[in-house]
Order: sequence, then structure tokens, then C-alpha cells
Amino acid sequence: MLRQAFHELTIPTRGRGLREFTDEVESWIAENRFRDGLLTLHLRHTSASLLIQENADPDVRRDLDAFFARLVPDGDPLFIHTAEGDDDMSAHVRTTLTAVNLSIPVRGGRLALGTWQGIYLWEHRTHPHSRRVTLHFVGE
Amino acid sequence: MLRQAFHELTIPTRGRGLREFTDEVESWIAENRFRDGLLTLHLRHTSASLLIQENADPDVRRDLDAFFARLVPDGDPLFIHTAEGDDDMSAHVRTTLTAVNLSIPVRGGRLALGTWQGIYLWEHRTHPHSRRVTLHFVGE
Amino acid sequence: MLRQAFHELTIPTRGRGLREFTDEVESWIAENRFRDGLLTLHLRHTSASLLIQENADPDVRRDLDAFFARLVPDGDPLFIHTAEGDDDMSAHVRTTLTAVNLSIPVRGGRLALGTWQGIYLWEHRTHPHSRRVTLHFVGE
Repeated sequence: MLRQAFHELTIPTRGRGLREFTDEVESWIAENRFRDGLLTLHLRHTSASLLIQENADPDVRRDLDAFFARLVPDGDPLFIHTAEGDDDMSAHVRTTLTAVNLSIPVRGGRLALGTWQGIYLWEHRTHPHSRRVTLHFVGE
Repeated sequence: MLRQAFHELTIPTRGRGLREFTDEVESWIAENRFRDGLLTLHLRHTSASLLIQENADPDVRRDLDAFFARLVPDGDPLFIHTAEGDDDMSAHVRTTLTAVNLSIPVRGGRLALGTWQGIYLWEHRTHPHSRRVTLHFVGE
Repeated sequence: MLRQAFHELTIPTRGRGLREFTDEVESWIAENRFRDGLLTLHLRHTSASLLIQENADPDVRRDLDAFFARLVPDGDPLFIHTAEGDDDMSAHVRTTLTAVNLSIPVRGGRLALGTWQGIYLWEHRTHPHSRRVTLHFVGE
């Protein structure tokens, strides 16, 4: 018999950068003894992203930040939405180029992630924020 | 007891640009008295996108259009797929850089969107089109 | 009564490029006589993507490759994560700009794809790899 459950995570960020939170998600799965199903994560913000990327070499995160800093520069004279500063519109564009929701199968009580995959919150604003992620599980 | 339901939305566009349709999605949820579950949207096209972005300041949409016009210019001499005109291949690239499906939890009869999040259809072709979005709900 | 099922596909690639596998997904749906529900695909890698794009004119795939080769060049001096070669970090960036999971409704035993939509594995590494995709179905 399939069932569903919800959870709300609050992830504090220290300003721009990638913060892994795979453990928080796996803890919720373990606490509820979910065995097999589908886990969906939805980030309730428009200037940060959810990302699955390599969690081995930290240089990958450094290079992602460097690439996006060049591709979507802060303070681009193209932008007119600058109410909250130089990093406001660039943060919206970075979110648009990535994603705010992810769906990952759960097998045998574990996320079906690859060996090197971790789940990240990518903060695009330069100042620290508190970000809310809604989790949904359907399965057994 | 979990159940599921489907719906098909047809969204007319006026050519390139972002058109919010959060209300159409929320109406379907309300009409069917869905309380808690997961809503998935799938856009059945390859030259338009689904996007969750800020629905407060319209300048955000204007800046997104400006950024993408510079990043993926129409009529780029790099492209050989130009059968339908200058905006044909650039539309496929814009779709590739964004998304055609979204999954959003539903809580207490409302989409679990953040305060500033709206659901948009992003038309990438310059001429008006009629775009079809399939909705799926699983829950209670 | 809703049920769920899982499957694991292994997709061999011939190096960088787009490989359609819509048929493999539809075969699994047909074999299991799934009628209506939601299909989710998750790619267990950080240097390849899942993509829904046009499956008519092969020039679209050629142009996508050309665009990404220019946007995210191999051997970019910006990158310091180069352990596995010139195409290592560029592959992670390409994955970040696209997606590793997709969710598609199933109606009457068929994926609710548009007329021109196909499901692709996009290999971002220059050498051939074997890529694993986990499928999840919930429905009837």
C-alpha cells in the first residue's frame, strides 16, 4: 500500500556557494523507515538552486562558481532589476539556468544516487540566507 | 488512500516571453479538492520551457529575456538547423538550458511555492503559439 | 489501486553526443502494462545529462553540440579540476546547465510526449562510457 509524507528543511547559507545537504535528506528517509519510492525536493526561492553534482573533489564546486561568475556577472549593465543590489538579477538568471526541483528514486531505504552524486543547495546571493526546501515522498 | 488525476492545459502565447499560469494550475487543484500530494507539469514542446521564477517585479522577466537574447542569439551563424527561421535553433537551445518538466508538492490544497514564486510558460519562438501542458497529480 | 515499480537501464555511449533511448523506456512501460501514471528517470552520473529534445532533424543535435562546445569549452584555463583531462570540468558544467532527472506523465500506456519530443542521454565526456539510469513508475 503506497503512502506519502512531507517534510520541510531549513538550510542556512553563508552567502554564495554550494552547500551539500544529502545527509539531511537521508536522515529523514531513515527516521521514517521509507524503503522504496520517489523523493521530490522543491526549493521555495527564486535566487538559489537545487543541484546534484560531484561530492568528491571540492575543486568542482570552485570551478562551477568561477564559470557562473563569468557567464552571469554581477552588476551586468544589461540588467534593470537591481533593487536589491548587484547580485540580485544575476541570482535570478543562475536559478533559471539550473533548477529548483529534483526527483530521485529511493531503493532499499537509500537515495538511488550515483557514487559521486550529492544533493546541493546553491546559494546565488552574496549574503547569507535561510532557504526552505519542501520534501515529498511517495512509496512504501 | 492515494489517487491520481490528469489534466491538459492549453496555453496560448503572444510570441517570445514569459506568461504566468499559476492560477490555471491552482484552479485545477481547487476544482478537484486535492489536499496533499505532488503535482507534475510536462510541456509537450521543444521550443518553449516551464520555469518557476519571481512574479513580483516584471523587470525580472524583461532581464531574463535580455540575458537569453545575448547568450543565445537568433540567427547565430553557428547553427545549421534554420528550417523555420532565425529563431528556430535558438529556441531549442533555450529550452535545453531550462526545463520542460516541474514537480511541486501540494499542501493543504495549495502549491508549496515560495512567496515570490510563480509558474511560467516561456515561449522562445517569436511568433504566437498554442502550447500544451500535461498535469499529473498523485496524493489525497 | 496505485502501485509502483523500478527499473535500471544501462546506456552505452560512444563519447560526446546525444543518444535517444525513448524506445527502451516505452518498452519497459509496455512489458509491465502500465496504463496511467508518472514516470521519473534519474541519471546516476555527474558528467552526462538527461534531455528531452526534438527527434526529427539530426541537425538539432549537431547544433546543440556546437553551441555547448562554444559556451563551455574543453580545457578552459578557468578550470582547476582537470584530473581526468580537458573534458572533465566542462562535462560537469554541461550537466549543471541541463538536468539529471525528468518526470513524464504516462497516459493509455504511452509517455505523454509531444510529437517531436524524444528522451536523450547526453554524454559530455569525449570517451565512451556506460551510463546508468534508474526508472520509477507510480500509477496503474
